[in-house]
Amino acid sequence: MSKNGDEKIMLNSQIDAILKYALEEDIGTGDITTLSTIPETARAFGRYIAKEDGILCGIDVAKRTFELLGAEVEFTVYKKDGDEIKRGDIIAEVSGNAVGVLTGERIGLNIMQRLSGVATSTRKAVDAVAGTKAKICDTRKTTPGLRVLEKYAVRVGGGTNHRFNLADGVLIKDNHIVAAGSITNAVAAAKKSVPHTLKIEVEVEDFDQLAEALEAGADIIMLDNMSVADMARAVEITNGRAMLEASGNMGERDLFEVAKTGVDLISIGALTHSVKALDISLKFRLL
Amino acid sequence: MSKNGDEKIMLNSQIDAILKYALEEDIGTGDITTLSTIPETARAFGRYIAKEDGILCGIDVAKRTFELLGAEVEFTVYKKDGDEIKRGDIIAEVSGNAVGVLTGERIGLNIMQRLSGVATSTRKAVDAVAGTKAKICDTRKTTPGLRVLEKYAVRVGGGTNHRFNLADGVLIKDNHIVAAGSITNAVAAAKKSVPHTLKIEVEVEDFDQLAEALEAGADIIMLDNMSVADMARAVEITNGRAMLEASGNMGERDLFEVAKTGVDLISIGALTHSVKALDISLKFRLL
Amino acid sequence: MSKNGDEKIMLNSQIDAILKYALEEDIGTGDITTLSTIPETARAFGRYIAKEDGILCGIDVAKRTFELLGAEVEFTVYKKDGDEIKRGDIIAEVSGNAVGVLTGERIGLNIMQRLSGVATSTRKAVDAVAGTKAKICDTRKTTPGLRVLEKYAVRVGGGTNHRFNLADGVLIKDNHIVAAGSITNAVAAAKKSVPHTLKIEVEVEDFDQLAEALEAGADIIMLDNMSVADMARAVEITNGRAMLEASGNMGERDLFEVAKTGVDLISIGALTHSVKALDISLKFRLL
Amino acid sequence: MSKNGDEKIMLNSQIDAILKYALEEDIGTGDITTLSTIPETARAFGRYIAKEDGILCGIDVAKRTFELLGAEVEFTVYKKDGDEIKRGDIIAEVSGNAVGVLTGERIGLNIMQRLSGVATSTRKAVDAVAGTKAKICDTRKTTPGLRVLEKYAVRVGGGTNHRFNLADGVLIKDNHIVAAGSITNAVAAAKKSVPHTLKIEVEVEDFDQLAEALEAGADIIMLDNMSVADMARAVEITNGRAMLEASGNMGERDLFEVAKTGVDLISIGALTHSVKALDISLKFRLL
Amino acid sequence: MSKNGDEKIMLNSQIDAILKYALEEDIGTGDITTLSTIPETARAFGRYIAKEDGILCGIDVAKRTFELLGAEVEFTVYKKDGDEIKRGDIIAEVSGNAVGVLTGERIGLNIMQRLSGVATSTRKAVDAVAGTKAKICDTRKTTPGLRVLEKYAVRVGGGTNHRFNLADGVLIKDNHIVAAGSITNAVAAAKKSVPHTLKIEVEVEDFDQLAEALEAGADIIMLDNMSVADMARAVEITNGRAMLEASGNMGERDLFEVAKTGVDLISIGALTHSVKALDISLKFRLL
Amino acid sequence: MSKNGDEKIMLNSQIDAILKYALEEDIGTGDITTLSTIPETARAFGRYIAKEDGILCGIDVAKRTFELLGAEVEFTVYKKDGDEIKRGDIIAEVSGNAVGVLTGERIGLNIMQRLSGVATSTRKAVDAVAGTKAKICDTRKTTPGLRVLEKYAVRVGGGTNHRFNLADGVLIKDNHIVAAGSITNAVAAAKKSVPHTLKIEVEVEDFDQLAEALEAGADIIMLDNMSVADMARAVEITNGRAMLEASGNMGERDLFEVAKTGVDLISIGALTHSVKALDISLKFRLL
Repeated sequence: MSKNGDEKIMLNSQIDAILKYALEEDIGTGDITTLSTIPETARAFGRYIAKEDGILCGIDVAKRTFELLGAEVEFTVYKKDGDEIKRGDIIAEVSGNAVGVLTGERIGLNIMQRLSGVATSTRKAVDAVAGTKAKICDTRKTTPGLRVLEKYAVRVGGGTNHRFNLADGVLIKDNHIVAAGSITNAVAAAKKSVPHTLKIEVEVEDFDQLAEALEAGADIIMLDNMSVADMARAVEITNGRAMLEASGNMGERDLFEVAKTGVDLISIGALTHSVKALDISLKFRLL
Repeated sequence: MSKNGDEKIMLNSQIDAILKYALEEDIGTGDITTLSTIPETARAFGRYIAKEDGILCGIDVAKRTFELLGAEVEFTVYKKDGDEIKRGDIIAEVSGNAVGVLTGERIGLNIMQRLSGVATSTRKAVDAVAGTKAKICDTRKTTPGLRVLEKYAVRVGGGTNHRFNLADGVLIKDNHIVAAGSITNAVAAAKKSVPHTLKIEVEVEDFDQLAEALEAGADIIMLDNMSVADMARAVEITNGRAMLEASGNMGERDLFEVAKTGVDLISIGALTHSVKALDISLKFRLL
Repeated sequence: MSKNGDEKIMLNSQIDAILKYALEEDIGTGDITTLSTIPETARAFGRYIAKEDGILCGIDVAKRTFELLGAEVEFTVYKKDGDEIKRGDIIAEVSGNAVGVLTGERIGLNIMQRLSGVATSTRKAVDAVAGTKAKICDTRKTTPGLRVLEKYAVRVGGGTNHRFNLADGVLIKDNHIVAAGSITNAVAAAKKSVPHTLKIEVEVEDFDQLAEALEAGADIIMLDNMSVADMARAVEITNGRAMLEASGNMGERDLFEVAKTGVDLISIGALTHSVKALDISLKFRLL
Repeated sequence: MSKNGDEKIMLNSQIDAILKYALEEDIGTGDITTLSTIPETARAFGRYIAKEDGILCGIDVAKRTFELLGAEVEFTVYKKDGDEIKRGDIIAEVSGNAVGVLTGERIGLNIMQRLSGVATSTRKAVDAVAGTKAKICDTRKTTPGLRVLEKYAVRVGGGTNHRFNLADGVLIKDNHIVAAGSITNAVAAAKKSVPHTLKIEVEVEDFDQLAEALEAGADIIMLDNMSVADMARAVEITNGRAMLEASGNMGERDLFEVAKTGVDLISIGALTHSVKALDISLKFRLL
Repeated sequence: MSKNGDEKIMLNSQIDAILKYALEEDIGTGDITTLSTIPETARAFGRYIAKEDGILCGIDVAKRTFELLGAEVEFTVYKKDGDEIKRGDIIAEVSGNAVGVLTGERIGLNIMQRLSGVATSTRKAVDAVAGTKAKICDTRKTTPGLRVLEKYAVRVGGGTNHRFNLADGVLIKDNHIVAAGSITNAVAAAKKSVPHTLKIEVEVEDFDQLAEALEAGADIIMLDNMSVADMARAVEITNGRAMLEASGNMGERDLFEVAKTGVDLISIGALTHSVKALDISLKFRLL
Repeated sequence: MSKNGDEKIMLNSQIDAILKYALEEDIGTGDITTLSTIPETARAFGRYIAKEDGILCGIDVAKRTFELLGAEVEFTVYKKDGDEIKRGDIIAEVSGNAVGVLTGERIGLNIMQRLSGVATSTRKAVDAVAGTKAKICDTRKTTPGLRVLEKYAVRVGGGTNHRFNLADGVLIKDNHIVAAGSITNAVAAAKKSVPHTLKIEVEVEDFDQLAEALEAGADIIMLDNMSVADMARAVEITNGRAMLEASGNMGERDLFEVAKTGVDLISIGALTHSVKALDISLKFRLL
């Protein structure tokens, strides 16, 4: 994984917006159980412990949650985003006002578990294609409101990002082709209109479409739901004239088999649409 | 399922806020592929078809998406929230300006698939305990930002809702008990402070705690991770003096066995934290 | 009054939202009088002094106002929320940049006076029923936008809160009864649908309705505008099977007479809908 | 009262913002009592009836509430803002979906009652000074968040508005005078800096200050807490060189006595800081 | 100009947000002059007339302004975005409630004039390079808050858009090169990290840098402030291996000379940072 | 220019709102070029240098930009708002985390250049009328969203502000006069309705209108597009009975000639609608 912070492609203000929304949703007008049972001056100490192996992601989000609540906590970090964690590892420790930390701990932990889950499954996919040139990338199938965080987790796991939204990438699909009359027309129309800083991607289903897309000058071609044999044939036909992206239920495919065909990218919606949270415990004791 | 709309416990303004956020996140400054390849005057027709059996939830959300985009569509509904749908059923049809419907269809469909997934798994749980008095209910383990929608889906599926947030329900757990000194103290403190409109719930792990909670006057007692035998014993001990809620990885338990013990409620975090979207297709053709 | 902070059931972000709105409303693009007449470097010292006896509430709000304006002030607190203050008491002192403190002082002071007024009249009501078991509680008749603060002031004054909004409490009134067909039906419908963490309250006007509500299993029964004699009779009939809440112009009733009937709660809309601000002065001198 | 709409000095977007906030505060995630007991298809009819005499204000606000909730209602208006209403008058009738109107009616009614209270007490003050040249005006002592509505109500009642906020009017008080060194300096500083479209007002406590303010060219002079005799003397001294505004607990003074002194304006904080809501009933029956 | 709407790459919600902000900024609590002098029932008729030749842009924005104000107007459009307009042409006519249209007309007109100015100067630049392959494009030097509208106007004028923000395009400049150690390193780092849907652009100042950028595989090369001779030489060297973008005070250069060198793009900051509004008059008469 | 801060008539929260919006617009989900090429730990040092003579305005805005991004920078200020700066002057220096400062520098610099441009051209106009009594003031022709900042820059340049919006100043123009029937009627209507703290301004085109406006008691009279001779005549006629404001393409007039006529104010739309940014460079080097 990159060592120079290039995966932190997001604004803090966006994280804060997400956390504030989540905190308000969860806390409402106040955690009445905690407020009525725990003395204002009580202090608590908690420890984040990995309950299974994986890749950590979101430790800053967990910390930030307490800051947004105005809780004055000490937060000691033992593992950072991108680190491999083993079952039993101490990830971080937090201590501070008991009312504050008990009110907010759930939100930060939940998001960290979710992001670590994304990073972990991304890393597994990256490892599965080790030794090939294929990169693992995500899709737009993210949780509404959490896209910027989930795509960050993909990068932390060693994957790369597909477009962030419909405005910063071009992907010509069946309806666009029908409306434009042909792949040739659609690519020409896109080239004429969209910012020149963007590549043109076309989704194809067979070799005729592939040939037409290459001829039209597509920069990237998405091979939709092709067999391994067909993907290998597509790589041969393309011969470096465009990037090739394997797509379509890749979450359930043998990634190494796919990667060995020579495709440049494998995009996996399941990285973000079917997340298994990484199990991290956070137990508090009162001081 | 209720026939009188009682499951629609949410403000339209909340749905709109969620949808607007999701649309802005996904569309950015515009769907440049669609805009550059599809004529402004083109019209498209799409059909929502069930690809598997389940309970529909979120049809109004799907429709509302187009309205928020300002797309002038005709939206014909054949199935409504709570209906059982079978693979192959036509759920709804939409027609309108092609640029508009193609830009926004994904967001509405994704949320509807997710909510239908929640409703469907809720219904399965409800069916699993048919013939017992146990109700199926949700938890706070919802997707950040989507809580109000996901809890709505639980109701559509025939379940009931646990508290919406930390302010509208009392749940006394281990830390609260330690801080207050005892279950007795914690219950007394809560009764003194929280609105009298709220019941007091205590989480217990053994029969001593159960006895103390009953004595203290808890209205609801959460039996945390108990065996079926222990739950049966707890029902016997309680003898109607409080509601009993079975909790703890209930998503992986035999719900009928649990329900037969006589508990009043079974709360299942998995209903919302591990959602399997219901497969619904939406194919467009240009008119 | 509770000594362990249990009355602080509110999010700081909610207070900030209220204060920011109030400051922007009052200041517009800037306090042009102060800015044009007072040197940027001038410093001012101000003292909050009680002009009448009462219960203090909102001292943190007063302080927070200056922080939100970015004024670097020293704020020394001599009295805290819940303290009894006597005419002439020094409550707090503030010193800092004159332009900053003079621009913002009015908003913070006004809200503190209003909240102290709520706390003071609540305390009077609580004192009036001393020796009985009746609790004093508020209603939804609060100032639009200030509900969370005003309900906090009620707690500071020793009262308790009724539901915060229409979603976190059930109160079945005449129209609901008519629509459902009977009290029995209405209670059953509510029990079936609302979160099990909420009690069911029914408003009744006579003994027939009371009997039906008890039979239906209402948790709380609101006695609407009953005479003291009727309330006493209701207590007798109920015999502990439900909580009883006396309601209806209680701001103008003899609270001790009401409380002596044995009702559990007396809800008083006037606590928040007809507030007499507590007189607190804040005089500045330039340093 | 003006017949040409000049009192409608406010943006609809501001009203909507206030109402949305108030509705969200009051409704939360939904009116669970109404939703669980009243059939989705039920319809209700309600009638607004005056329970006391006064000046109506806020009828559009009441109507707008239902629109914002998305309730499809018929709203028939019999009285409009500024009309004198008599006990027993039918003000308006509303009919529509029962769930919708019962959920939202309280907010709209409460604000209308409050605004009508402001308009009514303003009208009383205006009537009290009939035959003199004095105008009745308001202050900045409004409810946080409701200023634009409450100042509208003052105009509807026949009064005029003082400045809306600290940016659109100049009022030089004691601290400003001390900081600037003298009234003369303060007025000069303000004239140099503030927009030329604004008049300069100075608060004076005695005749020396009055003389200095006149000499300095103040446009308006506020006579703070003066006796009627002193006010009369101030009018004589001023002799038309500036507008004179009587101020200071005017809510408790004999307004006609004050007005007869010849002052131009009487500003009354009590118009908005001590509002007695006008009693208007709204009873529904199900259709 | 495109005939199929591809220039409408923006969300209506973004336009609404800009207009609402502008209207609130300009109107405050109400247009008191209009409200106090013009009867509520008066109607006005206005006509938009071109006072100089140019390209129209923003007609929908002008119309939308009235809708956002809630003014019920009839708006008849004679020219649409992208049309050439000649001095004296009637562009559109509006009629409706006088108070409404007079309050809001300025904001809509001002923005339309500004956008038409952008479109007109873009068209001039496009015409200046007619017959060459060079496209005219914009930069990030837009008015804060108006970027999406100003970039739309560039498209309406026949230009294309450079990246919308720092996240949807890569442009490696001097500091990036220094930090990465070399152009080669910087391009490699970017290729590794950024979404594969984005091209890599490098800014070069001389032929050595050009050679290194080509070698490194840059997709686009920005020729910064080069002479026409040097640009021609760069085209020759590049020989189609990358797109070439001429940049640097292009607003003051002879665009045809630049275009004839064979560069693919000419980016002109002045299109949006030094806008000369197109003169369009809007005169009203009362009906 | 004032030395006591009176030009700082604006809320910090308003500046923050503008900057946040501008930063989000420009940065999107992150500056991917900087993040992928510059090490997380790199530090950079930058210097703001004047490239031409002028009046500085906005230095706090430039600094605030970095704070809002959360970049921990040292910011050393050598020149402050209102200072005359000469080509080559060092204005400020900033050092800090390279990723942070490189991401945000453009927004802060652009706004500072724009505001300094406004202040500089205002100062030129002020200097042009030196020795006369005429003040230079601005209009409502500001950039949407930036009004509060641009009007601040006018004050920094030594000018004064006309009304901030349609609610805090009265300006009766042709349509108002037609609707009211006459200048006399319009002035009377305004005096009756608007806050007494505001002066009444009337726009006149000839001497008949001037006479009527004076007779009606207008406080300020705008002389629209008059020749110098006519303005001189208007001053003579008015003879101190009202303030006179010269208006109409004043950006292209000989201001000294206009000022010598004896008018009180010259309002110049071009100060803000046709801004030439002051050239200030900001070059970074990595440490």
